[in-house]
Amino acid sequence: MSRTLCSALPATRTRTGSVTVEGWIHRRRQLATVTFVVIRDRSGLAQVVVTDPLVREQVSTLPEETVVRVTGTPIGSEKAPGGVEIIDPTVQPLTAPSEPPPIELWRPGLGVTLPTALDHAAITWRHPTRQAVWKIAAASMTGFRRHLDSAGFTEVTTPKIVGQSTESGANVFPLDYFGATAYLAQSPQLYKQILTGVFERVYEVGPVFRAEPHDTARHLAEYVSLDVEFGFIRDHRDVLAQLRDALAAMVDTINEKAGAAVETVGAQLPSIPEQIPIIHFREAIELVGAAPTEPDLTPEHERFLGAWAKSRFDSDFLAVEGYPAAKRPFYTHPQPSDPRWTNSFDLLFRGLELVTGGQRLHNHADYLAALAARGEDPAEYAPYLEAMRHGMPPHGGFAIGLERWVARLTEADNIRQATLFPRDLHRLRP
Amino acid sequence: MSRTLCSALPATRTRTGSVTVEGWIHRRRQLATVTFVVIRDRSGLAQVVVTDPLVREQVSTLPEETVVRVTGTPIGSEKAPGGVEIIDPTVQPLTAPSEPPPIELWRPGLGVTLPTALDHAAITWRHPTRQAVWKIAAASMTGFRRHLDSAGFTEVTTPKIVGQSTESGANVFPLDYFGATAYLAQSPQLYKQILTGVFERVYEVGPVFRAEPHDTARHLAEYVSLDVEFGFIRDHRDVLAQLRDALAAMVDTINEKAGAAVETVGAQLPSIPEQIPIIHFREAIELVGAAPTEPDLTPEHERFLGAWAKSRFDSDFLAVEGYPAAKRPFYTHPQPSDPRWTNSFDLLFRGLELVTGGQRLHNHADYLAALAARGEDPAEYAPYLEAMRHGMPPHGGFAIGLERWVARLTEADNIRQATLFPRDLHRLRP
Repeated sequence: MSRTLCSALPATRTRTGSVTVEGWIHRRRQLATVTFVVIRDRSGLAQVVVTDPLVREQVSTLPEETVVRVTGTPIGSEKAPGGVEIIDPTVQPLTAPSEPPPIELWRPGLGVTLPTALDHAAITWRHPTRQAVWKIAAASMTGFRRHLDSAGFTEVTTPKIVGQSTESGANVFPLDYFGATAYLAQSPQLYKQILTGVFERVYEVGPVFRAEPHDTARHLAEYVSLDVEFGFIRDHRDVLAQLRDALAAMVDTINEKAGAAVETVGAQLPSIPEQIPIIHFREAIELVGAAPTEPDLTPEHERFLGAWAKSRFDSDFLAVEGYPAAKRPFYTHPQPSDPRWTNSFDLLFRGLELVTGGQRLHNHADYLAALAARGEDPAEYAPYLEAMRHGMPPHGGFAIGLERWVARLTEADNIRQATLFPRDLHRLRP
Repeated sequence: MSRTLCSALPATRTRTGSVTVEGWIHRRRQLATVTFVVIRDRSGLAQVVVTDPLVREQVSTLPEETVVRVTGTPIGSEKAPGGVEIIDPTVQPLTAPSEPPPIELWRPGLGVTLPTALDHAAITWRHPTRQAVWKIAAASMTGFRRHLDSAGFTEVTTPKIVGQSTESGANVFPLDYFGATAYLAQSPQLYKQILTGVFERVYEVGPVFRAEPHDTARHLAEYVSLDVEFGFIRDHRDVLAQLRDALAAMVDTINEKAGAAVETVGAQLPSIPEQIPIIHFREAIELVGAAPTEPDLTPEHERFLGAWAKSRFDSDFLAVEGYPAAKRPFYTHPQPSDPRWTNSFDLLFRGLELVTGGQRLHNHADYLAALAARGEDPAEYAPYLEAMRHGMPPHGGFAIGLERWVARLTEADNIRQATLFPRDLHRLRP
């Protein structure tokens, strides 16, 4: 008999005959004359009611997390999930009985500390509240690609083993590459720019690596970067508009594909304004009451600005444009009217920096000047500069950190909760 | 004036007034009284006819690959691409004039050796025949995800920095991880199995790393793996059926999104049979005339079998199932009727191994026995074995090497031609 997913059980009410579900024994409750078994599959939960003494005895040997096939009769029941439960079942274990798991997955919450949850990630991700977090992440990736595919972007994959560090020598992981020294890519920045010279519009969803020596709630040594770069722009505001549309598609796709997950974790999805409000860095510094010479915003400043955007524009998002050139990478395009500032932005989401983006330099001579000003050797950037030497359109782009986005959406205390198998200063396993 | 893509020019024929295109100067031909300029953008080519002496003089200072905006009048022309050319143009350089590129991109072929093409990848990918190869790759990834999204799979991202090598200690890149030794993941195998215990059905598109000491036309040190794993299967033939559907979606999406690219490179897309023909390893060895004790197929054997499948079944694909246990990883499920063989397969595509897949062990005790038989320490696999200890469904999966697939489709001599920035024994740049 073909398998019915738990979520499809209500649709079986009008049929006669039996159904088969397959999944994990999520919870057993053995009462005096009846045993309730809750089955968990990828779609949700279903309740099975066992009264036959022989089947009850069999089920008593099958601990939670045993994988089973259950065939029985679906009937309406007000108390069961979806209004349908299965009675008169036969139960077939598909795997040898499980050992009781280290975490009681049937409880509403995990009830363990973060380190314990991470140590047992192979099991804790089975918990419905954990699964829901990742389903929001997966839908975010799908939505990101949907927008870019529809906007004429080409997906690219760039090397993660690179011969030079992307932007500076700091915080890179070196590795032995057949006797030479190579590095793990900190971002696809240089490659995505090169490829803008090929396909005009490119995106990549892939891992990036930062040898972050900080043990904080918001840093990971490896994370997923949603990268975009495209040409024939006027300035960074075209980049911000594209980012706006990508975020809108991500939220729409979360609603469409992970609506139940959003409910499970109680996430408040943002509405994305048609125009994301923009404030210049200079004005932002004034607004938060910092010294005009301050070169960057602190997390406290960002929180303040987030609250300000919410009350002033009813927006969860605020773009801060014009960051000082000194705090931006060498490839950042200056603000034409005043080169102390740049055509770049940070996007704050609920008072936290979510995205960095902007316009890049596109003239070869400007690259040589920018590298010289920082005392960097152009030879280190030879293939990148070759692209610039032979005609690059005005271009720009941005990168969204997937885990940071999901952590903020789900109000996770720690970014590790939004990562399937986080990597940090102390954690290499699982 | 808003931009018109070159491919959309034919649709402008019925309009009056002018159009603006933006792109690269692909080719200039300066004749006695007229200069022809071919513009290349992400959609294709457009011809611009310059007769005004001042504009001709301007264009003479703009070498090939200079990025320009051209505004002019579209008129029908039988000789122009798409049947439309632009006359009476004004030309605005968007970037300082390019230096002439190291490769004449306007010629029909690259006309350089592979090492030269790879050294200048930043430029050579701009060639229409090269772009076409990657567009087939990008459409393949889109099609792969389309099928899996529609079949209830969850996209996952697994760590590329791992605390243990995936299957054996050979051919891994070690790296210094905050003072500890870590490795680059050779595959997401162990993680995708763990996650089958969470989401039942998972896939990942991501980089994998092999410290291949071989300098051949078919090995890369880093490549893109299209990974699938799913639970509640009967055996490896369910895996093969899922693979068949994924390949069909990939071919459909190439046709839909990259039809012009297929024409450009002259690729012959395969038709995917409803049922991929299957031969048992034992019979395959007999068919190729090798000794019955032979533990593996050679490339010559695979070519022979590919030709056999073509003539016998008119199929570009042949699945060889039942590979000897000794040649398969420890997690491979034995063939129930005879454990010398396994429930695994290789898929040959036009006589070349394209995919390895199969059913995995799912009982914890079977893992302990399999590791013991190979003298491996179960402690090395603790988080993986934890998933198995607490209830795993019968499951299996496969992995397609993106570059190998594209190289075979486009009949590339060398897999490096199907990789944006290949990594091999000698190549770390660009």
